[in-house]
Amino acid sequence: MDAMMMDAVGKDMMSMPGMDTMDMAMMQECMDACSACEQACTVCSTQLMSCAPACMNCADMCNTMMRAMMRMQGMTPASMMAMLDACVAMCQTCMDECMQHADHSEVCKMCAQSCQACMDACAKVRAAMMSAA
Amino acid sequence: MDAMMMDAVGKDMMSMPGMDTMDMAMMQECMDACSACEQACTVCSTQLMSCAPACMNCADMCNTMMRAMMRMQGMTPASMMAMLDACVAMCQTCMDECMQHADHSEVCKMCAQSCQACMDACAKVRAAMMSAA
Amino acid sequence: MDAMMMDAVGKDMMSMPGMDTMDMAMMQECMDACSACEQACTVCSTQLMSCAPACMNCADMCNTMMRAMMRMQGMTPASMMAMLDACVAMCQTCMDECMQHADHSEVCKMCAQSCQACMDACAKVRAAMMSAA
Amino acid sequence: MDAMMMDAVGKDMMSMPGMDTMDMAMMQECMDACSACEQACTVCSTQLMSCAPACMNCADMCNTMMRAMMRMQGMTPASMMAMLDACVAMCQTCMDECMQHADHSEVCKMCAQSCQACMDACAKVRAAMMSAA
Repeated sequence: MDAMMMDAVGKDMMSMPGMDTMDMAMMQECMDACSACEQACTVCSTQLMSCAPACMNCADMCNTMMRAMMRMQGMTPASMMAMLDACVAMCQTCMDECMQHADHSEVCKMCAQSCQACMDACAKVRAAMMSAA
Repeated sequence: MDAMMMDAVGKDMMSMPGMDTMDMAMMQECMDACSACEQACTVCSTQLMSCAPACMNCADMCNTMMRAMMRMQGMTPASMMAMLDACVAMCQTCMDECMQHADHSEVCKMCAQSCQACMDACAKVRAAMMSAA
Repeated sequence: MDAMMMDAVGKDMMSMPGMDTMDMAMMQECMDACSACEQACTVCSTQLMSCAPACMNCADMCNTMMRAMMRMQGMTPASMMAMLDACVAMCQTCMDECMQHADHSEVCKMCAQSCQACMDACAKVRAAMMSAA
Repeated sequence: MDAMMMDAVGKDMMSMPGMDTMDMAMMQECMDACSACEQACTVCSTQLMSCAPACMNCADMCNTMMRAMMRMQGMTPASMMAMLDACVAMCQTCMDECMQHADHSEVCKMCAQSCQACMDACAKVRAAMMSAA
């Protein structure tokens, strides 16, 4: 996301309980990882391999997660944590499926890497929220 | 959803670990509740009241949940439970916001009712999965 | 959609230029057809047949169309017409793909029928807008 | 999008009638513009100004457009053109709304710029498809 837009998002995030000390660079990293994962999963699903349903589910969850982070006025710490957990779990499921084809599909390999990166970014935000609470 | 289509979904659900004893009528009820909640939240968000960001988040989460239930081949029990938890949490957040305007907005009142129905339906599926595991 | 919710949507639609004479039952029929088509396409795509990418595209377009009809305050006659055209074209593409498997897949047959119904409903709304303009 | 992922997308695009001579850099630019516009519109909609319903519609249309470009196996030239037209029209509607607040909202100004960029990118792809046909 554009730096000025991120400023606008950041101001709203700060106003959420337990978010006033959040690192905005970390939040932006997480939104970008969600966006990249949605895109990788969308492409991967077109291969019509057995991972495709997991990829479609993961693409939707990552988009929903990214948008929620851009609309923090509509989140509570409880719903935010639950959404992050769901995004991590969905990325894990998709990564596990794609790793079964990683040896013979470059796209699956890239998709699995995007899932791992998204999981890591979501876990990092979750940990920061926990320590701030 | 159409009955014949539900049959097709049902056959795939049955093949998922811990889902072979699932009540398909209960699953269909949950998908319908997610769909109804997405629609109510989408309408409610256009009022531009303070609940709108929560409504938008809830609409996206409910759509993602509904689609995941239609693509159970791409879910594991772990990701399914985490998604159900996230959907319940997001509906709770949205309902709490809308209840603050329920006295003077019929749309907020209906939106809150849809959130409650979606939460109940998701919790029921979750409980059934727990007892089957 | 629930009748009271439809009333709320209807009031906003009426305020759009060229929409004051719109038949709300026809609009609701169209939103329901979009929702049904999104669901059929989502299920159909999990079969991982050659129609799957078209089904995924159609599911997304139908959801976007449905939501836009629920947020008419954010539409103009021009964008509404263009969206209806895109939804009709996407449903046509998906139906053509699914019809190639309709003989040996009940799900593809149902998906094609949902696409046809959605096309018809969108074309009807478009025609009504044209005659009202 | 990642360069290797773009290669995978590119191979599928090439196989579509009238797409074999498409400039993949132009396609990637368009997908990136759709993604950026979805994000800007999502943030802008949280301001709950009068542009919000248009912003929500535009965010959904841009996401649907981006995904369709990543799933070109499921598109025809006709559905692709109609979707590009719809995306251009929706961006125009959103930009017109946001420009009314551009003087006193930096976010609306940025959102309008993202809409313009997305319109331009979609129009460019459309023109290239027309000249290739």
